[in-house]
Amino acid sequence: MAVKDLNDALLDLMKDLLHAEKQLTKALPKMAKKAGHDELRQAFESHLEETQEHVTRLEQAFEAMDEKPRTKVCHAMQGLIEEGEEASQEAEEGSTRDAMLIAAAQKVEHYEIASYGTAVVWAQQLDQGKVAKLLHATLDEEKEADEKLTQIAESGVNVAAENE
Amino acid sequence: MAVKDLNDALLDLMKDLLHAEKQLTKALPKMAKKAGHDELRQAFESHLEETQEHVTRLEQAFEAMDEKPRTKVCHAMQGLIEEGEEASQEAEEGSTRDAMLIAAAQKVEHYEIASYGTAVVWAQQLDQGKVAKLLHATLDEEKEADEKLTQIAESGVNVAAENE
Repeated sequence: MAVKDLNDALLDLMKDLLHAEKQLTKALPKMAKKAGHDELRQAFESHLEETQEHVTRLEQAFEAMDEKPRTKVCHAMQGLIEEGEEASQEAEEGSTRDAMLIAAAQKVEHYEIASYGTAVVWAQQLDQGKVAKLLHATLDEEKEADEKLTQIAESGVNVAAENE
Repeated sequence: MAVKDLNDALLDLMKDLLHAEKQLTKALPKMAKKAGHDELRQAFESHLEETQEHVTRLEQAFEAMDEKPRTKVCHAMQGLIEEGEEASQEAEEGSTRDAMLIAAAQKVEHYEIASYGTAVVWAQQLDQGKVAKLLHATLDEEKEADEKLTQIAESGVNVAAENE
């Protein structure tokens, strides 16, 4: 058995997250390119910068635990990104596609919110204060990114999609 | 292009959700069997009953839109379930495995919260009141399931995992 205790489980989760974030740094530029509304494109571009920072924070969290940063294939994120790509193939450029891109991106954010939420609690439980702090900073940004996407949807993308 | 407007996008999302929920009805009994803590096992079992109801509600939502209930492969849920299965293979029965099962289940809940959240907003936008109501009822149950899992984790599984 690879996972013997909560410390192993946390490292396992961080490996999954590192793979997820790295995949996301490749997917976000494609999503930005597919976005019709400027505001949405800018949101994807600015979240790309944050995502690069999330990779760095995870690497620092591994260091804080005296471990080398390693990845483990994150099947869920692969599936989530695949759904985002399908969305942009199934609809022409415009508000409906934007609404679908937002939906796909919010699923990604919620995946990360759930994962980082668990990771923070486990790190606190293990008295890994520095790790908890690093991962909490990312958790907050994922929540903000999710809220920002809701605002963009509500500010006009959905209405425009309805009238397309 | 398969998706021409927001109505198509909503149907597409509901097909994805129907596939996701059906997969979950197969996965939850396996997760219940792997759970160590009685409370966690019972939570999975009672969420299985809810999930069967979610399938029914989705079928009713399709009917309300004069459409036959259809599914579309949900790659994300496939990945999420795969992660849950990995968790139960990587750790022996006990609190660490339970903590990992909770983490996997919370990712599933968050996937559904994001999806149903979008579906409800789109249905409201399209004046599909009955559809919005059905999906909102499920959204509330997914949120409650997520909170219940947090309670179980906090009530002792994490502490027990730390001391394993």
